[in-house]
Amino acid sequence: MSIDNLKAEIAREFGTPALVIDLDVVEHNIAKAQAFCDAAGVGNRPHIKTHKSPVLAAMQRDAGARGITCQKLGEAEVMAAGGLDDILITYNLLGEEKLGRLGKLSAEKTVTVAADNPVTIAGLPMAGRIAGRPINVVVECDSGRKRAGVETPGEAIALAELIAASPELSFAGFVFYPPDKTVASSQHFFDEAVAGVRALGLEPRILSSGGSPNLGMLQEFHGITEHRAGTYIYNDRMMMAHGMATLDECALQVYATVVSRAGAERGILDSGSKTLTADTGGGLDGFGLIREYPQARIAGFSEEHGMLDLSKTNDRPGVGTIVRVVPNHVCVVVNMFDRYVAVRGDRLVGEIDIPARGKLT
Amino acid sequence: MSIDNLKAEIAREFGTPALVIDLDVVEHNIAKAQAFCDAAGVGNRPHIKTHKSPVLAAMQRDAGARGITCQKLGEAEVMAAGGLDDILITYNLLGEEKLGRLGKLSAEKTVTVAADNPVTIAGLPMAGRIAGRPINVVVECDSGRKRAGVETPGEAIALAELIAASPELSFAGFVFYPPDKTVASSQHFFDEAVAGVRALGLEPRILSSGGSPNLGMLQEFHGITEHRAGTYIYNDRMMMAHGMATLDECALQVYATVVSRAGAERGILDSGSKTLTADTGGGLDGFGLIREYPQARIAGFSEEHGMLDLSKTNDRPGVGTIVRVVPNHVCVVVNMFDRYVAVRGDRLVGEIDIPARGKLT
Repeated sequence: MSIDNLKAEIAREFGTPALVIDLDVVEHNIAKAQAFCDAAGVGNRPHIKTHKSPVLAAMQRDAGARGITCQKLGEAEVMAAGGLDDILITYNLLGEEKLGRLGKLSAEKTVTVAADNPVTIAGLPMAGRIAGRPINVVVECDSGRKRAGVETPGEAIALAELIAASPELSFAGFVFYPPDKTVASSQHFFDEAVAGVRALGLEPRILSSGGSPNLGMLQEFHGITEHRAGTYIYNDRMMMAHGMATLDECALQVYATVVSRAGAERGILDSGSKTLTADTGGGLDGFGLIREYPQARIAGFSEEHGMLDLSKTNDRPGVGTIVRVVPNHVCVVVNMFDRYVAVRGDRLVGEIDIPARGKLT
Repeated sequence: MSIDNLKAEIAREFGTPALVIDLDVVEHNIAKAQAFCDAAGVGNRPHIKTHKSPVLAAMQRDAGARGITCQKLGEAEVMAAGGLDDILITYNLLGEEKLGRLGKLSAEKTVTVAADNPVTIAGLPMAGRIAGRPINVVVECDSGRKRAGVETPGEAIALAELIAASPELSFAGFVFYPPDKTVASSQHFFDEAVAGVRALGLEPRILSSGGSPNLGMLQEFHGITEHRAGTYIYNDRMMMAHGMATLDECALQVYATVVSRAGAERGILDSGSKTLTADTGGGLDGFGLIREYPQARIAGFSEEHGMLDLSKTNDRPGVGTIVRVVPNHVCVVVNMFDRYVAVRGDRLVGEIDIPARGKLT
């Protein structure tokens, strides 16, 4: 079968836009990330926010991952229901609704949660009482991204002490999310925090780094026990911009149809901001790369229209043409769909559900 | 009950982020739009892309709407299953998968579709054969937005003739989407197209205008028979910027929790780009208005983090604080959730599903 036949078959079976993943490329990407971790002697704990599917998470586990990372409790619940275990939730969970659910989940699975403040830590014992065993808590540390995480080793040590003081909690370690490709700046924070808790008689079990672009630098971050990366399973234009993936390593493409060509130098895809999202991928040009027409620019959106600027290409697709779009940022695009169409090369394999999509709580 | 009690109740029952709509405000907004249409003697055909719920569509119908507008066929199928009829799909439908579904839907309901090119028109008779009756087709005209739609009256007339020539199609009229608040520029295109088809012996049944910001200008667009508007049912920061809504007329708010305060001048909401979306609302400052802290700026996102810049406010929310966020653009935010929490004032009413969410095909 040719790629043109595959496009026609997918359009006929599922319509467009379709979220298509190539499992051959997925397996290649999973093996490559696992090899980075193995080479550095670091555990692999992939972040499932990217794929949101227990099927894909099981592929990562079966290839050697020690556990998984989730960003939302609802994602963790879906993964647990799908047979996954050893789940790290890198998020401050607050409020009795979430703490009740966390307690229930922790009774059944090995779960670890993150905290970066005393209010979060004060709430977590409620979950421990429901679970009937201590909740594992890592302290989230910010070494430059200015996201979640305490900003100083002193605060990290104080929170570790606070966790260790609760019989319903168990201090589990520290999580870092170093700025892309600048692992070195996190080392000082890391060394001071680890030394500080050891001086208190606490031993971190988890010392975690993160980020797909940092997979190539794991050997430079001394002392970490595991790494969290998500995007690498599919890759995207951001990962290509980081030099961490080639176009052939982009496992996910949105199959879209040209639905309008009202002007000579413009056209419209059936994929707008409700499909490809307005994510710029950190300042990339346009909202996706069209494989068949790399000079065609996805210049803007309405909700269900992707506006094609065709002024820089003489090869212009007509109405009805099906194209493959590599997104700027795969994680947010996956979140717009309820299922994948799975292929291997130019052969259609089937569908895979995305049950953790939209698990916002 | 107070709003603080309501916030606590919603957090306890559903967790945050929660997509909360106030049905009192919804009813006010529906009545206001209907009054604009009534005053202009124009039919109201609200666009359900905004709310994606048959329950809300039925409220619009029961308040006087003559039918509904959908952007995707999957949305129309959900609305039909939910009891709605007289459905206009303002989109070029292509490919046998969609044409088969359109035929089936058209056999059961009154459906009209748009086309702006001969390829689309050449495909639609397949749907007519499946439906067992002609497919109603309107020609989409572009009077300035550079989206879908032919750019000249001559093209519009030629497509009308093409539609009328097919026994499996019925020419239904023209749809316009005038630039915001500049209805006048569409009038010339409209007059020439309508005169042109009448000269051919064709009578347009539907002469449709669109856009919530244009609701106040319907009386200036002479000859139209109906209007499509979506956003007005909830309103948002974009509608406020257009001067078409007050803050009290914003019926939808995302209830979110502050989950981190790692720095004195910054914080993090549990609502990132997978909740509030990266939609800038056409260049608004920040990604939403926090009602309780209007000086706090939602400065950026990661997927599950909304980054709060608190440097301009001395009143700074602590970890655990629940806030209400008015989105930049409601339509894309609704699309991230599976259900609404419905309230009236400070009283919780229940949940409403969003079954047309993510209907991308």
